[in-house]
Amino acid sequence: MDPYMIHTNGDGNLSPVLDVHVNINGKGSGLGKMKGRKARWSVKPSDMSDKTFNPIRAIVDSMKVKPNPNKAMISLSIGDPTVFGNLPTDPEVTQAMKDALDSGKYNGYAPSIGYLSSLEEVASYFHCPEAPLEAKDVILTSGCSQAIELCLAVLANPGQNILIPRPGFSLYKTLAESMGIEVKLYNLLPEKSWEIDLKQLESLIDEKTACVIVNNPSNPCGSVFSKSHLQKILAVAARQCVPILADEIYGDMVFSDCKYEPLATLSTNVPILSCGGLAKRWLVPGWRLGWILIHDRRDIFGNEIRDGLVKLSQRILGPCTIVQGALKSILRRTPQEFYHNTLSFLKSNADLCYGALAAIPGLQPVRPSGAMYLMVGIEMEHFPEFENDVEFTERLVAEQSVHCLPATCFEYPNFFRVVITVPEVMMLEACSRIQEFCEQHYHCTEGSQEECDK
Amino acid sequence: MDPYMIHTNGDGNLSPVLDVHVNINGKGSGLGKMKGRKARWSVKPSDMSDKTFNPIRAIVDSMKVKPNPNKAMISLSIGDPTVFGNLPTDPEVTQAMKDALDSGKYNGYAPSIGYLSSLEEVASYFHCPEAPLEAKDVILTSGCSQAIELCLAVLANPGQNILIPRPGFSLYKTLAESMGIEVKLYNLLPEKSWEIDLKQLESLIDEKTACVIVNNPSNPCGSVFSKSHLQKILAVAARQCVPILADEIYGDMVFSDCKYEPLATLSTNVPILSCGGLAKRWLVPGWRLGWILIHDRRDIFGNEIRDGLVKLSQRILGPCTIVQGALKSILRRTPQEFYHNTLSFLKSNADLCYGALAAIPGLQPVRPSGAMYLMVGIEMEHFPEFENDVEFTERLVAEQSVHCLPATCFEYPNFFRVVITVPEVMMLEACSRIQEFCEQHYHCTEGSQEECDK
Repeated sequence: MDPYMIHTNGDGNLSPVLDVHVNINGKGSGLGKMKGRKARWSVKPSDMSDKTFNPIRAIVDSMKVKPNPNKAMISLSIGDPTVFGNLPTDPEVTQAMKDALDSGKYNGYAPSIGYLSSLEEVASYFHCPEAPLEAKDVILTSGCSQAIELCLAVLANPGQNILIPRPGFSLYKTLAESMGIEVKLYNLLPEKSWEIDLKQLESLIDEKTACVIVNNPSNPCGSVFSKSHLQKILAVAARQCVPILADEIYGDMVFSDCKYEPLATLSTNVPILSCGGLAKRWLVPGWRLGWILIHDRRDIFGNEIRDGLVKLSQRILGPCTIVQGALKSILRRTPQEFYHNTLSFLKSNADLCYGALAAIPGLQPVRPSGAMYLMVGIEMEHFPEFENDVEFTERLVAEQSVHCLPATCFEYPNFFRVVITVPEVMMLEACSRIQEFCEQHYHCTEGSQEECDK
Repeated sequence: MDPYMIHTNGDGNLSPVLDVHVNINGKGSGLGKMKGRKARWSVKPSDMSDKTFNPIRAIVDSMKVKPNPNKAMISLSIGDPTVFGNLPTDPEVTQAMKDALDSGKYNGYAPSIGYLSSLEEVASYFHCPEAPLEAKDVILTSGCSQAIELCLAVLANPGQNILIPRPGFSLYKTLAESMGIEVKLYNLLPEKSWEIDLKQLESLIDEKTACVIVNNPSNPCGSVFSKSHLQKILAVAARQCVPILADEIYGDMVFSDCKYEPLATLSTNVPILSCGGLAKRWLVPGWRLGWILIHDRRDIFGNEIRDGLVKLSQRILGPCTIVQGALKSILRRTPQEFYHNTLSFLKSNADLCYGALAAIPGLQPVRPSGAMYLMVGIEMEHFPEFENDVEFTERLVAEQSVHCLPATCFEYPNFFRVVITVPEVMMLEACSRIQEFCEQHYHCTEGSQEECDK
């Protein structure tokens, strides 16, 4: 009997929902177990998926509290500028997409690293004499997340380590650990506007260090490094011969009193992979258009790293071709006014939020200079009811319906992060609710009576 | 001296192109080498990028021949239905994208597995009584490539193996090997319309087999499995307790004399991850909208595999939100006529191409039943000038400016693949040039004189 025959019922047709019946023990079929395989179902997720851990999801999902039903929810937790509708992208950006659709030219496969014409546009947009770029130095990706993933995937092997900021964007750790790459945390110093503790950074570097991730402007800090601080970072990288992965997705999103310096413009000898994308500056994070800029003027990455990135890009191909087709117009035709308006709004909200929270006993906000965030220290000794920032922010939801991310999500306990993209009136309302919350829970500590008398 | 100080020139400003000077040997800085790290540059690509190998790129890029300057190039090599402009997507599809843009609702981050409303649409589109689907059974991805990547990443650990078809789409091997997963090739039988050699398939399964990839309809074969053959495949999977990764990106793209059966509709006991997307049926491969359908009615994958897929999707987030926003209209409003017209065209071109090539001595085309391809056997003994299919197709470019992919790209030497999406007139011209080429190079073999006299 051919065991590969399927038995049909009388009329020769198979029942449409026929469930294939098999003999688990292999009796009668003449086949059964092969090479020691046990014929029973046991499908387990891979080690990689087990190791893929998103701390924000884990912490937020475990916060089981319900908001106060008497107060409308204000979420200051999601780093998405589009959620409140007050920060639409520019009409030129939308029009560029429609033009790309109408052209009919961008429906097919692009090269895995992106259309040459789109690479050229990105190169010319970011080109400058201090850090020249050509099309061959650009790789387009499915969002900045994939840009970071490809950079880590090409630079590090399992068992190596990377240095990431604390506090820092959680994706670095999520990606690295899923790939078996160890993370080491270097400290940012709130009292120095979140500059890097360079000595501690350098002390972490060892022979297994594959790269240092520098995130400037910073999520979650909203900080912007000065030129001289960036030069000191480069000096460490140069001295230790460690390449830099620069997460510059918030590039140019800095307030008027401050200047953003792309890291690569300050060095000619440290090889840098700079990651960016349309998400934040053009206010379209969902479109998933990111890029890697390869800065390697001393030929340290060489063709090997470039080829490695190209090969890795072929695994899932690049970003949506319609967005790629629209890129030229987006980069060339978005009016300066649009960028200016976004930044004025963010600066105004940052000032407002910082001012309001700085006046609240028990809170220590750190004034931001860019991006869309503000970090707030909690003087936990004045809030003895709460064990930590997670409980503090949990209760803030329960009592005031205001949701901020506990900075434990960023490996930085006893702080919380405020997203400053909400409409002004909500920002004010949120701050006033945070004030009420703090006043209700503030306790004087011994020996600090004078502080409480203020 | 503080080694983290940067020295400025006289006026206190740093030169904008200042190159940070460092002392390689660490002398004078007080720092230098840390923990045995050698302070010299040595940045090597990771093992993963070294292991990422795209055979099509490698083979095509190494084909150094130039096309015949007297004949316009006809490329039958790229599986992209959009390249010739004769197969535009439906206007409803483009309109759906514009509506999504205009709504302003789809610019922000979607959940990493996709908007709930989009998951619901996909679930309801593919739901049927034999294989019910809900939103929770769907994961949206950046193209079908990422769908396959996530499925492999969740099912297999490095050191395990997967079974893939020969001939088969090269991405399976590229992805698996980049992840350290071994591939074992099971045979498709050209003389049986590319059905699987089930006995050989089953003989390859061992205790390290994580899944079997079944690609139906097939790239590169253009074959469509019958219901009874699919049931036999399921019987093997059930007997050996191996889950199936069904690459059904060409689902429903079958000619009128044939029926496509989604694998999951034929089984209730084999857990199946079915991968698909908008690429082929809606003729927009560049848009990168793919999906995974989780069929697990016996709860064999269970929550673990589902959660694993969700976690892996968080590594780079999902597809472009504009395409996600357009999905409802695309799935609901694309007229039946559009699908019908595409298939009529493909069927007509397939018949035309098959008929023309079947008449050429030395070629053995296999008639396709769906997808966009046709495989052609080369009777190499009649073409002694050429060592193999790579040389055959290379010379076809050089002499006739017709480019077909050598099936060595699909692990199947001495065949070549023809893409049948080209305009009819080009299809005819290509066939006639292939005929001329074969006639010029055909040699009779000994003992087959009668054949040559025909």
